[in-house]
Amino acid sequence: MLRGVFPPLPTPFTEDALDEGVLRETVASLMESRLSGLLVLGTNGESFLIEPAEADRIVRIARDAMPAGRPLLAGTGCDATRATIAACQRAADHGATHALVRPPTSYTRFMTQDVLMAHYDRVADASPIPVLLYNQPAVFGAEIAASTVAILARHDNIVGIKDSSGNIAHVNDVLARVAAEFSVLTGVAGIMYQALLSGTRGSIVAVANVVPNLCVELYEFVMTGELHKALALQRALAPLANAVTMQHGVAGLKAAMTLAGYSGTIPRLPLEPVASEVEEELRGMLRHLELFTGWTL
Amino acid sequence: MLRGVFPPLPTPFTEDALDEGVLRETVASLMESRLSGLLVLGTNGESFLIEPAEADRIVRIARDAMPAGRPLLAGTGCDATRATIAACQRAADHGATHALVRPPTSYTRFMTQDVLMAHYDRVADASPIPVLLYNQPAVFGAEIAASTVAILARHDNIVGIKDSSGNIAHVNDVLARVAAEFSVLTGVAGIMYQALLSGTRGSIVAVANVVPNLCVELYEFVMTGELHKALALQRALAPLANAVTMQHGVAGLKAAMTLAGYSGTIPRLPLEPVASEVEEELRGMLRHLELFTGWTL
Amino acid sequence: MLRGVFPPLPTPFTEDALDEGVLRETVASLMESRLSGLLVLGTNGESFLIEPAEADRIVRIARDAMPAGRPLLAGTGCDATRATIAACQRAADHGATHALVRPPTSYTRFMTQDVLMAHYDRVADASPIPVLLYNQPAVFGAEIAASTVAILARHDNIVGIKDSSGNIAHVNDVLARVAAEFSVLTGVAGIMYQALLSGTRGSIVAVANVVPNLCVELYEFVMTGELHKALALQRALAPLANAVTMQHGVAGLKAAMTLAGYSGTIPRLPLEPVASEVEEELRGMLRHLELFTGWTL
Amino acid sequence: MLRGVFPPLPTPFTEDALDEGVLRETVASLMESRLSGLLVLGTNGESFLIEPAEADRIVRIARDAMPAGRPLLAGTGCDATRATIAACQRAADHGATHALVRPPTSYTRFMTQDVLMAHYDRVADASPIPVLLYNQPAVFGAEIAASTVAILARHDNIVGIKDSSGNIAHVNDVLARVAAEFSVLTGVAGIMYQALLSGTRGSIVAVANVVPNLCVELYEFVMTGELHKALALQRALAPLANAVTMQHGVAGLKAAMTLAGYSGTIPRLPLEPVASEVEEELRGMLRHLELFTGWTL
Repeated sequence: MLRGVFPPLPTPFTEDALDEGVLRETVASLMESRLSGLLVLGTNGESFLIEPAEADRIVRIARDAMPAGRPLLAGTGCDATRATIAACQRAADHGATHALVRPPTSYTRFMTQDVLMAHYDRVADASPIPVLLYNQPAVFGAEIAASTVAILARHDNIVGIKDSSGNIAHVNDVLARVAAEFSVLTGVAGIMYQALLSGTRGSIVAVANVVPNLCVELYEFVMTGELHKALALQRALAPLANAVTMQHGVAGLKAAMTLAGYSGTIPRLPLEPVASEVEEELRGMLRHLELFTGWTL
Repeated sequence: MLRGVFPPLPTPFTEDALDEGVLRETVASLMESRLSGLLVLGTNGESFLIEPAEADRIVRIARDAMPAGRPLLAGTGCDATRATIAACQRAADHGATHALVRPPTSYTRFMTQDVLMAHYDRVADASPIPVLLYNQPAVFGAEIAASTVAILARHDNIVGIKDSSGNIAHVNDVLARVAAEFSVLTGVAGIMYQALLSGTRGSIVAVANVVPNLCVELYEFVMTGELHKALALQRALAPLANAVTMQHGVAGLKAAMTLAGYSGTIPRLPLEPVASEVEEELRGMLRHLELFTGWTL
Repeated sequence: MLRGVFPPLPTPFTEDALDEGVLRETVASLMESRLSGLLVLGTNGESFLIEPAEADRIVRIARDAMPAGRPLLAGTGCDATRATIAACQRAADHGATHALVRPPTSYTRFMTQDVLMAHYDRVADASPIPVLLYNQPAVFGAEIAASTVAILARHDNIVGIKDSSGNIAHVNDVLARVAAEFSVLTGVAGIMYQALLSGTRGSIVAVANVVPNLCVELYEFVMTGELHKALALQRALAPLANAVTMQHGVAGLKAAMTLAGYSGTIPRLPLEPVASEVEEELRGMLRHLELFTGWTL
Repeated sequence: MLRGVFPPLPTPFTEDALDEGVLRETVASLMESRLSGLLVLGTNGESFLIEPAEADRIVRIARDAMPAGRPLLAGTGCDATRATIAACQRAADHGATHALVRPPTSYTRFMTQDVLMAHYDRVADASPIPVLLYNQPAVFGAEIAASTVAILARHDNIVGIKDSSGNIAHVNDVLARVAAEFSVLTGVAGIMYQALLSGTRGSIVAVANVVPNLCVELYEFVMTGELHKALALQRALAPLANAVTMQHGVAGLKAAMTLAGYSGTIPRLPLEPVASEVEEELRGMLRHLELFTGWTL
């Protein structure tokens, strides 16, 4: 069962291509922490800007750079059902342990709950590796209703959901309807503490690429019942978490990783790197968090 | 300081007028519970459908039917600054202890943070009773940003906020910016448990009109650290809480109150009573909660 | 039958009160043009910020300052059905010839087409003067569907609609469903030309308070088939029309009126006057239009 | 210069693959009309569900089945700039005369006007065939502002725009800013008449796949100044036009084509065919239009 903190890895690029060296190195560095595993090819991985052959390389390289026991999740959702199935098969071939499947993002007016259900059923039937649902209506358009999750959760090959709605009432509703072994993970770093106290099993959050240990500590504080520490850490992480998602997106995340000692690299066009003021702002946030690092270690 | 659970009282109507007898009786009944106080003239009180002279009577009758020590909050927000100030003064004259001030709901494109700030400053300067802010962008259009709350919270006569955004990340952000004596209350029953664990002081939630003791118990479970009980109760309350707000609105709330032994009465036109199927659905939800009542008492 | 161009008059204010002198004077000035009549108490009239006693004065003064034969429309829509009926009666008592009734703007999730239909039916049954519907979902929340307009248009006392959706496909749909004597007026100055060519009878547009003659000329060019002139004028008017609505709202409209030689006065709080840069921008737009005034006269 | 009516061709599928025979046949049939040309790989062509190799075949087959002189537009927009450029090159290689480039639909919060401008500039610089912009914010997320269109229109290799905003005020604004030889085409069949009277050069509308001659006649009526006929036809076409886009999407379009004598085929999963009631509804609409066909021929 998936538990703990997983970073959704950004994809390192040179001007023209995948930066395989940096990818290998970043995965290895991140895995020195107590992170539970890794997600590649999520939206933070610029999956929408990546070609299939690149995707295969990314999965392969990440798998090779990771400790054998840790789960490697790969984003495999496409708009067409058949393309999604093909992506699951290729991710499995290259070493992914789980497929994170976003809903189709086109023709969203026609993505009724019945259509989504049929789509996920077909994908889960065909995928060689277990499937995670992915709910983020603000980005993907279609919402996977709690009642739909409840039904899909009974499929043998659907083992969890990444919920990035940011809506705790919705998370409560999902948790009230699924079995305890179905892994509900939050995708919003700003509510990790509350989500864990609601019964989620962990998180897949961008900021875990930047300050992995702080995210793991927040998780552990909740597990050990040290709620005041967890809440203080939650509040402290919020500005950086927000900066590397809502505010500055992948470009902000990559800049923050570079400032934190990784090689963030540049985003792929049409995405542009952040301005230098944003870097300054991010640097300030990281400095502020060092106080916490001291305190929590 | 405001703490605990406050019901936002629906306004009882006959076909033509305010039903003063029912109002008196409902207030008295609700106050037999451990509810901390009462809100009149909120959106659940059909404030948008009530005339000023009626509003004065509602405040007066509620005050007279309540124990002296308990706070009586009155909704006094209007679109014009001057009308809002006048409403605060009249509410104070008739016995309200606090004014809950929603933002202007017209010309919302021009309700910038600066304009909202100036509006609330003027209202708080002039109000004879302490003011609570009210944030619910989905209903009111304008959003009061966390940074605006932080500034307004320093005004001597602004003592708290009802936040009905339902967004725990936003609630976190507000709480991280205000002093401990500033009362942050959630207006979303579906997240009471998580909001309390985040540092809010209580809630103003429609479902507290229907099952006041269960809401108070949830509050108390969190206060005493019985988190598993609190979470179980939170999940159990969610469907009814949702039914009397999002799903069926004031009409649903009034129907549920009648089913729970109060006199809910009818809503005022153009609002219509719920259909009989909805009553059946609500009856089922209440029956389900009786199990909890047994367990928790 | 209502035809031609009607300005939705802004309400002149002093710091504390209605500015009756300016109101009288502005109405008289505007009526020297070929405008067909006048609307008071619309959203451009800051109706949401005005008290009932002031509303009565505004209708009375406008009536007295207008030529007897021209229609005086008054905004009378409130959230409650009973308040709306009362407002229609008072407007009629003070001299309005038509009531423009916006839909309720609160509890909008419950403003189904059935509820809107029942609301308008009750209002039209009780109103002593003919009723105009008002559709502007972006501002009022509820949308009056074309199929609802078709049914309401059969009521003897509902004689037209102001449609401010800005959506020509919707206007087409309404026009295809109503009788020729039902007056469809557009509320969006940026599409007057196309709306007239689609079968609408005229417009109620803010910019007609600033450059009444240009608006009337656009109308007349279409009536006489001088389509190239009409289109050129439509394009020329668009920036100013947009500035005094979408961009700068009532405050922008009042500033533009002052620049055009009327007394715009200040808006009522919480609305604030525009900044001086906006005045400069408006001045430039007016200057640009003078070329057209020369050409078209 | 592009003028007249272009159908955005749906892509015919068998259960597993592209139906090349039907594709060839449909293109040939449609080209017997006075349609100006054809668009393949638009959103109505299920471009989001199609693989690159299929896309190449579609362009090639359409080109071969069309009269030599008529323009063949191909949708080539992808989320990544490099993928978009590659798609333009491949479309040109296979016989397309113009590339219709939708904006990136992911990371839309970061698709500022500057980013869009840089993206389109790079694409237009590299594309071997002229580029058309594509504006449809409701579907694509990002809006191409009129001021951005004005700047991009000066690029030698950007020759027009498909505007599917449905917003005539916006279309006016674009037309006021571009040169006469820049081809503005509307993508909303419900406003073809008004768009032509505003200065657009034609349309790319789904319903032109179903009743091509009626769409061409509407265009010709406006060109010859027979406005009453054009308006009557516009109103008559609206329900069908709406049914095959907003209401029932590509599945509705394919069903309507089959009813009109073409082979619509099924949509690709996750899209599902329409229910039989929808077919009945579409059949009724087509029957109603036959009256018009009689009258207009």
